[in-house]
Amino acid sequence: MAKIKKQPRPKAQTPKGFQDYFGADVTARNDMLATIAGVYHRYGFDALETSAVETVEALGKFLPDVDRPNEGVFAWEEDNDWLALRYDLTAPLARVAAQYRNDLPSPYRRYAMGPVWRNEKPGPGRFRQFYQCDADTVGSGSVAADAEICAMLADTLEAVGIERGDYIIRVNNRKVLNGVMEVAGLSGDDKEAERGIVLRAIDKLDRLGPDGVRALLGEGRKDASGDFTKGAGLADAQADVVMGFMEAKRETGAATVSRLRELVAGSAIGLEGASELETIASLLEAQGYDAARIEIDPSVVRGLGYYTGPVYEAELTFEVTDEKGRPRNFGSVAGGGRYDDLVKRFTGQEVPATGVSIGVDRLLAALRAKGRIDTTAVGPVVVTVMDRDRMSDYQTMVSELRNAGIRAEVYLGNPKNFGNQLKYADKRASPVAIIAGSDEFDQGIVQIKDLILGAEIAKNATLEEWKDRPSQYEVPRDQMLAKVREILDTHS
Amino acid sequence: MAKIKKQPRPKAQTPKGFQDYFGADVTARNDMLATIAGVYHRYGFDALETSAVETVEALGKFLPDVDRPNEGVFAWEEDNDWLALRYDLTAPLARVAAQYRNDLPSPYRRYAMGPVWRNEKPGPGRFRQFYQCDADTVGSGSVAADAEICAMLADTLEAVGIERGDYIIRVNNRKVLNGVMEVAGLSGDDKEAERGIVLRAIDKLDRLGPDGVRALLGEGRKDASGDFTKGAGLADAQADVVMGFMEAKRETGAATVSRLRELVAGSAIGLEGASELETIASLLEAQGYDAARIEIDPSVVRGLGYYTGPVYEAELTFEVTDEKGRPRNFGSVAGGGRYDDLVKRFTGQEVPATGVSIGVDRLLAALRAKGRIDTTAVGPVVVTVMDRDRMSDYQTMVSELRNAGIRAEVYLGNPKNFGNQLKYADKRASPVAIIAGSDEFDQGIVQIKDLILGAEIAKNATLEEWKDRPSQYEVPRDQMLAKVREILDTHS
Repeated sequence: MAKIKKQPRPKAQTPKGFQDYFGADVTARNDMLATIAGVYHRYGFDALETSAVETVEALGKFLPDVDRPNEGVFAWEEDNDWLALRYDLTAPLARVAAQYRNDLPSPYRRYAMGPVWRNEKPGPGRFRQFYQCDADTVGSGSVAADAEICAMLADTLEAVGIERGDYIIRVNNRKVLNGVMEVAGLSGDDKEAERGIVLRAIDKLDRLGPDGVRALLGEGRKDASGDFTKGAGLADAQADVVMGFMEAKRETGAATVSRLRELVAGSAIGLEGASELETIASLLEAQGYDAARIEIDPSVVRGLGYYTGPVYEAELTFEVTDEKGRPRNFGSVAGGGRYDDLVKRFTGQEVPATGVSIGVDRLLAALRAKGRIDTTAVGPVVVTVMDRDRMSDYQTMVSELRNAGIRAEVYLGNPKNFGNQLKYADKRASPVAIIAGSDEFDQGIVQIKDLILGAEIAKNATLEEWKDRPSQYEVPRDQMLAKVREILDTHS
Repeated sequence: MAKIKKQPRPKAQTPKGFQDYFGADVTARNDMLATIAGVYHRYGFDALETSAVETVEALGKFLPDVDRPNEGVFAWEEDNDWLALRYDLTAPLARVAAQYRNDLPSPYRRYAMGPVWRNEKPGPGRFRQFYQCDADTVGSGSVAADAEICAMLADTLEAVGIERGDYIIRVNNRKVLNGVMEVAGLSGDDKEAERGIVLRAIDKLDRLGPDGVRALLGEGRKDASGDFTKGAGLADAQADVVMGFMEAKRETGAATVSRLRELVAGSAIGLEGASELETIASLLEAQGYDAARIEIDPSVVRGLGYYTGPVYEAELTFEVTDEKGRPRNFGSVAGGGRYDDLVKRFTGQEVPATGVSIGVDRLLAALRAKGRIDTTAVGPVVVTVMDRDRMSDYQTMVSELRNAGIRAEVYLGNPKNFGNQLKYADKRASPVAIIAGSDEFDQGIVQIKDLILGAEIAKNATLEEWKDRPSQYEVPRDQMLAKVREILDTHS
């Protein structure tokens, strides 16, 4: 064994871009994930938990000409294999669908929730590990599968506490967009660059408005800082088709679909896409999901290149205040769509699939903004230690409380300084402290302090002041549990 | 961008030593962890979730003379920093306790649950990612903290379904062992090698019996294969002390403690350890944890070198059949103890801490062996598709079931081959199938098939045979929900 040199002390720090989560932040997320899992399960989706580590080969994120995987994933070499942390939950699903294709039911409905890792430059609010929560149906080409996921997404948002009216799920179809490209004369292999610019322009409608998008479809656009973004160079007639598509949304789904049919007239793929949207809308309507919850909106594009049919996203429509104090819509918390090529990488066979991913942290932030998550952690009842020889008695008190389902603990630090015990109870956000010294034991009583009532003086009070407060009660020992319950009830 | 070369198809495989978990295996683990978290929370422990990735420096598992971390962890270099996946939940706790030492309450009770990663050679039943579930109290030197964790461990085992009588928690104290070493003349710095051999020998008592241990304390031991293990070379009188220690367990905790006091007479550290055990036993007794649940057992050593005081482990005492068909005790599912040096690495200050780690997968295996976990996943009610133009009607049926809290789905594969739909329902372990074609819609009825009753013919039946079985019921459409409920109730 190599002799270990004398080292400076290690730094106690999370690596850059990583984060620790404490107490209520952990449990609120777990509770939300459990609620979502309940909805997914009710819809017939089965849990899948793959490991954090995959082969780089299976993830498919590397350039073969270099000896190190590209940026974007955390990867390392292990016994001549490159391994990496998963960067999403879809790539492992594709691997699983291929690996177990003879054993899994088809269609395979699965949900997965857990952290993913991105090797990106960390920044404010940008983390290199974060949670995703996905549901996908693999092996069904029916748009009923897409409609089902949209319905499930609506149910999920309501189940976690987003009220009806505070969200909208928007559905579009890449096939309609392809039809529009065809009609606009942008469908050839040589037009890939233009199509990319058009796609990105549509995606910016929210931010740039119709005029900005129109500029990007034409020669280009100069932004407020003077920077120029080159446009797709479309002729006016071509740009009209694309703008018409984005503005095709009408009062009802049926009217929107008819407008889309006019726009893509002559394009087989476009008409197929319009029909699929019509089917999705009618399936959802039959199940009671009206356009106030799930609507057809041709302006939804979704960035990822791999979508091949319906795409959908959930937006929260209530206002929050941004970092500069301006009101703005909360925005997107989930999105997904249909993709057909992911499993094909492994097996050569095309397997239709559709699925959604919920941005767990954004959804949690939304629930906090709406006051739907109680971030004020309720601490334990703290049994203070006045006499360290009475530890067994204190432990008995605490057992009695715990056995009644009440969160409780004995103070386990050095009991000498009673003020420290009160500071501790304060730091723990304890609702109640129990106090018993030799006087109390002699008289068969305990002091019970309502710390929420008494919070304003808690930090500086002497023991005597503390005892005199009206928020403190002296009760017979055998009424301790009842009194604690009574105090907790008044605060709940 | 480098041009990507034509590649052979990637292999759809989990990396060696990693595993995928499906359906009920995922949810059973999550349910168990939620139950454990409930107990930990009631005891006043707060959740902590650190990220999977730590700096190698903070983990403290590397040799400075080589440019690559040693075996045991998965590590990689990132912007001149070495990062690694955590190999347990204790090292990140030590980092957190140091990093946030001014903000955390002291004592800090925290629990953590999640996967950890070991870069070890994979083998049967040995995985490179597995779950741990820990609870630790940092900043309390009181043995009341150790007693509390033992009590909590007993409550936890009972909460997840291990009955009283099926487990025993054994407590020992490293200080007593140190006292024994002192009395046996093994306490000098130059005796480290001998102490290591003695420790390992004691740890093998279960497997080798007293004679085998005795041999290892002396010259050494030849095993059945003829291999020789060198012993500690103790004189008989020294070995007597060590053997006396291992066999010091008596009928009651009090009797065991007195016997230990005799054995370590003259060693201050040994006597201190015996007193601590006495305190732990009396605290536990006051809370109703008798020796049938938590006992003092001097043969418990626990491998890890870093323990400095009380050590404890939970063993399940019921028999299971091993891979060779022989009955054996299930064995250890959790263990821990007191350690004082982990935070010191970062801050220079000694911070007393004590904690337990539950082997999640072993505990799950135990619950399965006891039939306490239902591994037969209950699949969804499957609404089959006889007429694809009726998809809205099928979706309405499924919505009705889901809204009543019943797990249900429409068959979303290609509906042409009805037999495939039945095979699918079978693979999903569906309890009930709903069947409705144009005849049924015309008459306002549905066919409801009890698949559990009808399981034996499910695989090969024609649709006509299927319809004739007594396990199939024809009910008016508006009685569908009631009938499905009735069938599910008969099977629950």
